[in-house]
Amino acid sequence: MPTSSKPNDASTDQSNTQAPIGRRALKREQTRSRLIDSARTLMAERGVDNVGIAEITEGANVGTGTFYNYFIDRDQLLQAVAEDAFETVGSALDQSLNTLEDPAELFACSLRHLVQYSLHDRIWGGLLVQMGAAHPILMRVLGPCARRDLLLGIDTGRFTIEDVDLATTCTFGSLIAAINMALSVDQNSAENMDEMYAASMLRMVGVPADEAGAISKIPLPEITSLRAQ
Amino acid sequence: MPTSSKPNDASTDQSNTQAPIGRRALKREQTRSRLIDSARTLMAERGVDNVGIAEITEGANVGTGTFYNYFIDRDQLLQAVAEDAFETVGSALDQSLNTLEDPAELFACSLRHLVQYSLHDRIWGGLLVQMGAAHPILMRVLGPCARRDLLLGIDTGRFTIEDVDLATTCTFGSLIAAINMALSVDQNSAENMDEMYAASMLRMVGVPADEAGAISKIPLPEITSLRAQ
Repeated sequence: MPTSSKPNDASTDQSNTQAPIGRRALKREQTRSRLIDSARTLMAERGVDNVGIAEITEGANVGTGTFYNYFIDRDQLLQAVAEDAFETVGSALDQSLNTLEDPAELFACSLRHLVQYSLHDRIWGGLLVQMGAAHPILMRVLGPCARRDLLLGIDTGRFTIEDVDLATTCTFGSLIAAINMALSVDQNSAENMDEMYAASMLRMVGVPADEAGAISKIPLPEITSLRAQ
Repeated sequence: MPTSSKPNDASTDQSNTQAPIGRRALKREQTRSRLIDSARTLMAERGVDNVGIAEITEGANVGTGTFYNYFIDRDQLLQAVAEDAFETVGSALDQSLNTLEDPAELFACSLRHLVQYSLHDRIWGGLLVQMGAAHPILMRVLGPCARRDLLLGIDTGRFTIEDVDLATTCTFGSLIAAINMALSVDQNSAENMDEMYAASMLRMVGVPADEAGAISKIPLPEITSLRAQ
């Protein structure tokens, strides 16, 4: 899984003088991960709003002051939790959907999984609703995957779009909006929201309306590698 | 112009006992407007970030403490400035585009104006980039107009969408994303962003790709009633 926020990618075969730095970087990364895991676990139990920094550090088995060696404030930790979740889902999507050959099916199934996952994982859903920074994080973590899938659709003549970057950013801007809506309506109304959103995005990239409707309703390949959170 | 945040819609023909409340409400509304106008003027001169509460109250000719009778914090004032700008642009759009009979042209031209206005008005642009709350405000202020235009497109068989509310929220989620992008690229790249975004949204609501491309490039009716800000 890519971790763009890793402070130091020290490899293990460095010279002796650099080894301690590598170990320190590794330890830092481990502590940071423990803080993120602790925050996620606590928020899953009690909701995003009801978890304080002291509990998070206690759960991660570090002193309260240590928190601020890793994050400026609670918001920055929330963003890290979201980023971690996006990376996990992104990797799982790549592994599970690589049998789909039609770029339109690949794009639609990826988006449907992202909507379904947000309804399934209350931490992610809650974070997306609260975070103003959700769009930049989605663009940073999942943007390259979406861009790759969209380019594949353009190259194969499946999609008609003028600007792949605009299509990518509009996809994630819409995704956050659609997830906000799915989380605010009742369960019945949210049930086929993933299909309706995927059909919208297929039309947006130039797939004819009737075909977009049909593709958005194909049986969704399961994501087997995604750990239950 | 609709002002959804007006605290009291006291009419002038109330009984004598209620008249003072009407006057107080009017005075409150006037002071609130002065604070918003002062903030907008100062931010236009110096950028969104470089204006403090003390300067805003001074510009509005009220005491510093008065600020907190109207707004919880600076963020809430920024949201009020954005809401006010959206209302102004929304009313201007309604007046200027009412000669367009094709719902697809109406939808495309409205969206193009919203992108162009964000590039023209640095306060609005800056607020949209910074505000996490941008999407809810857009939905509240301009959502009903977009919904009305989308329903017209459905009724006339011009648009193919399953859920008008999903299409509305995706339109504004994408709009914020597209404006963020237009503000971050160089001026040449941003030049036809309004057309590309409008074409994307026309495709999203089911207009065939070639037709969406053509409609997004029609001469844009000018908005004459919009005051220079």
